[in-house]
Amino acid sequence: MATSTVGVAAPGYRTEVAGQDGERGHRATMLASQDTARSYRVLRTFRCLVADLCEQFKGGHPGSAMGMAAMGIALWKYIMRYSPENPNYFNRDRFVLSNGHACLFQYTLMHLVGYRHMTLEQLRSYHSDRIDSFCPGHPEIEHEGIEVTTGPLGQGIANAVGMAMATKHLAATYNKPGFPVVSNKIWCVVGDACLQEGVALEAISLAGHWRLNDLIVIYDNNQITCDGSVDLANTEDVNAKMVACGWRVLAVDDGDEDIPAIVDALEQARAEPTQPVFINIRTTIGVGSKVAGDAKAHGVALGPEDVANLKRESGMNADEHFVISDETYGFFADIRERGRRYEQGWAELVEAYGKAYPDVADEFACRVRGEMVKDWTKIIPPKEAFPTTPTASRKSAGLVCNPLAAELSNIMVGTADLSPSVNMIWKGKVDFQHPDLRPTCGITGDYTGRYIHWGIREHAMAAISNGLAAYNKGTILPITSSFFMFYLYAAPGVRMGALQRLQAIHIATHDSIGTGEDGPTHQPVELAALYRAMPNLLYMRPADSEETAGAFAAALAATSTPSIISLSRQVLPQYSQYSSREGAERGAYVFIEEEDGAADVTLIGVGAEMRFAVDARDALARDHGVRARVVSFPCQRLFERQPGGYRAGVLRRGTPRVVVEAYAAHGWERYAHASYSMRSFGRSLPGAAAYRFFGYDAALIARRVKAFLDELAAGGAGGLDDGEFRELNVREGAEH
Amino acid sequence: MATSTVGVAAPGYRTEVAGQDGERGHRATMLASQDTARSYRVLRTFRCLVADLCEQFKGGHPGSAMGMAAMGIALWKYIMRYSPENPNYFNRDRFVLSNGHACLFQYTLMHLVGYRHMTLEQLRSYHSDRIDSFCPGHPEIEHEGIEVTTGPLGQGIANAVGMAMATKHLAATYNKPGFPVVSNKIWCVVGDACLQEGVALEAISLAGHWRLNDLIVIYDNNQITCDGSVDLANTEDVNAKMVACGWRVLAVDDGDEDIPAIVDALEQARAEPTQPVFINIRTTIGVGSKVAGDAKAHGVALGPEDVANLKRESGMNADEHFVISDETYGFFADIRERGRRYEQGWAELVEAYGKAYPDVADEFACRVRGEMVKDWTKIIPPKEAFPTTPTASRKSAGLVCNPLAAELSNIMVGTADLSPSVNMIWKGKVDFQHPDLRPTCGITGDYTGRYIHWGIREHAMAAISNGLAAYNKGTILPITSSFFMFYLYAAPGVRMGALQRLQAIHIATHDSIGTGEDGPTHQPVELAALYRAMPNLLYMRPADSEETAGAFAAALAATSTPSIISLSRQVLPQYSQYSSREGAERGAYVFIEEEDGAADVTLIGVGAEMRFAVDARDALARDHGVRARVVSFPCQRLFERQPGGYRAGVLRRGTPRVVVEAYAAHGWERYAHASYSMRSFGRSLPGAAAYRFFGYDAALIARRVKAFLDELAAGGAGGLDDGEFRELNVREGAEH
Repeated sequence: MATSTVGVAAPGYRTEVAGQDGERGHRATMLASQDTARSYRVLRTFRCLVADLCEQFKGGHPGSAMGMAAMGIALWKYIMRYSPENPNYFNRDRFVLSNGHACLFQYTLMHLVGYRHMTLEQLRSYHSDRIDSFCPGHPEIEHEGIEVTTGPLGQGIANAVGMAMATKHLAATYNKPGFPVVSNKIWCVVGDACLQEGVALEAISLAGHWRLNDLIVIYDNNQITCDGSVDLANTEDVNAKMVACGWRVLAVDDGDEDIPAIVDALEQARAEPTQPVFINIRTTIGVGSKVAGDAKAHGVALGPEDVANLKRESGMNADEHFVISDETYGFFADIRERGRRYEQGWAELVEAYGKAYPDVADEFACRVRGEMVKDWTKIIPPKEAFPTTPTASRKSAGLVCNPLAAELSNIMVGTADLSPSVNMIWKGKVDFQHPDLRPTCGITGDYTGRYIHWGIREHAMAAISNGLAAYNKGTILPITSSFFMFYLYAAPGVRMGALQRLQAIHIATHDSIGTGEDGPTHQPVELAALYRAMPNLLYMRPADSEETAGAFAAALAATSTPSIISLSRQVLPQYSQYSSREGAERGAYVFIEEEDGAADVTLIGVGAEMRFAVDARDALARDHGVRARVVSFPCQRLFERQPGGYRAGVLRRGTPRVVVEAYAAHGWERYAHASYSMRSFGRSLPGAAAYRFFGYDAALIARRVKAFLDELAAGGAGGLDDGEFRELNVREGAEH
Repeated sequence: MATSTVGVAAPGYRTEVAGQDGERGHRATMLASQDTARSYRVLRTFRCLVADLCEQFKGGHPGSAMGMAAMGIALWKYIMRYSPENPNYFNRDRFVLSNGHACLFQYTLMHLVGYRHMTLEQLRSYHSDRIDSFCPGHPEIEHEGIEVTTGPLGQGIANAVGMAMATKHLAATYNKPGFPVVSNKIWCVVGDACLQEGVALEAISLAGHWRLNDLIVIYDNNQITCDGSVDLANTEDVNAKMVACGWRVLAVDDGDEDIPAIVDALEQARAEPTQPVFINIRTTIGVGSKVAGDAKAHGVALGPEDVANLKRESGMNADEHFVISDETYGFFADIRERGRRYEQGWAELVEAYGKAYPDVADEFACRVRGEMVKDWTKIIPPKEAFPTTPTASRKSAGLVCNPLAAELSNIMVGTADLSPSVNMIWKGKVDFQHPDLRPTCGITGDYTGRYIHWGIREHAMAAISNGLAAYNKGTILPITSSFFMFYLYAAPGVRMGALQRLQAIHIATHDSIGTGEDGPTHQPVELAALYRAMPNLLYMRPADSEETAGAFAAALAATSTPSIISLSRQVLPQYSQYSSREGAERGAYVFIEEEDGAADVTLIGVGAEMRFAVDARDALARDHGVRARVVSFPCQRLFERQPGGYRAGVLRRGTPRVVVEAYAAHGWERYAHASYSMRSFGRSLPGAAAYRFFGYDAALIARRVKAFLDELAAGGAGGLDDGEFRELNVREGAEH
């Protein structure tokens, strides 16, 4: 039994050796009380139970859950501070299963330690067709005791980094001498796969940079992935890599059985004062089965014969299923009471804190309740505060967001290295940084800081932000920022936020081809289609500052929904006589109505391309005698939620509708009969020239709209009656 | 002047010190011929030229291009093997500018060394509104001399890894003793940003694993990103990290001026026999300007005063612009001739090779021409070869793809660690691996291997595959595979392939909610909207084996377009009486027609949900007396390319159309009046139960379609005449 130095290809870092420092409390208790022998029987019970749970419906992921049994017992029995009877008590340690397919590990432990809802019957619903199951194929945040939904590999460890940031930030902000009201740890289990994913590697680098010592990542090092042994695709020195990223590395050689060694390492990790900790625990996938150490143990049931054999080898009855002895339950019987003590101790601490520091305690209580510390509706600037001269909507976003960030301590704003471009810096902002960091550029910060330099790591920015939001609902509202195009890098994280109903605001600047010279690599023509289709997400393209205010109001009101506010690099006309934040909050509204309410056509303007709709209206009147009304349509999802009467009034059925946007038309067919849109990738040209190149010119648009109306009038090419959707911006040789 | 050991936080690896081994030829030549003094004047000319080019239109990225001048001169003048007069000669060294915003670095060098199209006038078109410019804001593959389009950070280095794989693979396959017909190197420049992106970190790990010693990554270490100094967001030990990933690390302390030291390091790198090489070159962004070493030098022009000052300090006339002395041109005057010699030498080698090894040389010549080595149309199995019993389309894909992979040496197939799930292993496949690798699982391979274990790195898989495809058009056809949901991780790479017109086939299994127990994290309901909107990409969902054959045929025929073939995990009925590969190749076709050609409604079935359309047709006839025809619609993009008459015949205008798919409806509004589709994320249930849960049941669909038709008949809710698109699968409480 020992934690030991790991052999590595390149020497050059010292793996900490257990047993030299740190509190030995739990381990001593365990050994003294002869827990050890009992714990090995529990270990076997656990594994047989997992095998049975996969066997019942012939599916699931048995191997890793079995291999992780010892680390589960070590962590959940001896180390982690939580309360099964109140899984959401604020100062609990958080547990994140980044290798979410091993969910039976967590469900089984939850049952054994006494989460009331996780009955044996529930546990047996894994992979069943029960729609009331708490045991989905990956852990889901909807269910009590689950901190975040995991499964897509690499996401969980990034979420855990976010939670560790939340801990550091809240502790730095609210703890007072003698009153550590925020003192939880984050325990995150990863498998070999998570450590290969880019999002995890980005997050690991950040955790080391910020020295998030409250984060402990436990590596279930079984050296197996679906394809076979890890060395088929990965022969790097993972420990050395973690050290290079600023982590402390501990190692346990026998993770299958050596519970005391694991406890020892976990204790050292809990006591680590300056670095995140990586505990490399060597385990055997499917340990005890015939496919132990083989990829076959990963994603299929073991088969009845192997399960029976496993039980016999474990000293259990091969003919009995789902057997949990009283001794096993007894082994974990102290957890509930211990949990109550943690809760009570924290409640008493907070009460005393309230007396010693009443003001700050009031705000802390507000944060714990997940409420905004001030009424944000009063902070969003009024229309009169906005410029009337042409203004880039990325600048408008700053005008709206910066006062919010300055006044609402709930908000943490970050950028994927685009501070000069996204305008998210408010006066007096403090960077979130380790207080000892002395960056070369002189911009210092500390853990109270609420401005985050994510580096060039868009995916981790989104995934870690999910962790910030999931730490405690409403306590922290993460605001991210980058160019819209790079929310394609971030998309898997954004999706996980939408799936988990975690509020976040993503400031996506440089949208459309108007972003200009950077060219097609930076011009998102198809990305909006993804976000408009994504459930539980608001994708909003405001047309000017007033609509930007509306977009922020909608995003702030959507407390269970992430939002993307999509903004221009280039200056946009300010339509103060037409634009309306309330209209924007409804998704679409009548922007310009003809005086008598009649019109030949409705032009739908969107975001940065509103000017083309408005100018085309003028050109239609001037050059063609056509009367056009204009609808502003910043958000399809918000519009869908409006009553039918409102929608009908905006869309004015019976009048042809043409949408003008410099994106692919996909999705607009629901609201328009024709589009003036993009059918190819963009082009590197100055913004105005790029628009011209792709035919975004009021007079040209007007001509094409007029031709379309003429065609309709002649009854040609379909007509509105069952007509084919028409793309009016078709150029010669345009690719698709 | 010295390459030296870099100071690192954690000791433990040895940075190679230059000057101890390797050929010293170029360096000696350079010093002897007094190139050195001249090279410093060239250096200054280069920087002033870059400053002028940004100044003319007050924009662009001057800083890094200026800081990289010395490494540019060292590499392009002394080391890299290329031919300006024939930029595409096969065995050239490849150059990839991963920090693509520094494109002036490359454009300027191309001009100086004599790429004929890169005139000074062209160079001056950077950031202009000229639509015939060869100098877009990031390098673009369309233009001669550019190997890949870069810009989105991290992509370029992944592409370079792909090119180095191509080199290794082709060399192992075709080189013979004395005939190194493939012997090029890949030179890739990265900045601080690329090294933070997850996709780069994934690719770096793979390059080390495969020991791709033909890859040399030159790190423009200026320690500046947009937000300020790199240490704001990154304090890791990058050298140690590279060593941990299996790279050799070299370092140059003075990358601003010390051209001989850089040449020295580059020579060592070229000679490295077993590892990819990382050359960490310390530079100063905007060196020589007033904002040298500052983030301000990154993305804006320096201003006329600073440019004038830079010229004065450089010994140039401040009032003259775009000045390139004869000495400067003379400095590079030997490059063209040298290039001709490289070309000629290679041509002679290949000629002799053809005599010595005529058979293999014939195939090699075919590969060089970018042709398939056999007629793939004859390899795709006929309909009769497919099973008639229900078959998962992922299995169908294996039936089609495996013979292609077995017979076409152009094809390299890989998987992001899902070999057991995606069925892409053909009999006799050899893994692409370093021949000395002895994986624990016993599956060995060598560089001739064409099956790639990507590990759990979906983004790198796609981005590296772009490099495989870009090595030489048509030489290698990369086929990737993973679950469809994880093509969201891969999306930025897939997009870059579409933008660059690089053929690739992405095998995306486990599509739709039918994937089952893994739950909503693994069930793509919105992702198809992205790929259907993405220009120059085919997203195809075949309904059975026959349509899968059609999808492969379409993908193989699309030599300038990547394809995603979207496949089911679960078994699907085989509609041998209805399905048609030719129909699938047209994007959509009539699947089941009523005998007299008349019908009350057209049901559009898609991919794995075709069975619901077909069964709903039966239910409509049986329960409601409604006659339905069925259209199969695997690919919107292919259908759009069909003549209007064909499209009208398939869609049958005047008859209501209802699409049945378990995705968000977005985009189908163009082809249908109503959808039976998803409005929320999915759910963890067994596949069949998941379908039931979300109302995918023939009788229920039939009832809803009948109600819709009744409503239309009653003239309610719109009607086809300007009707509102209807989602028929609306459940109580369904989120959106």
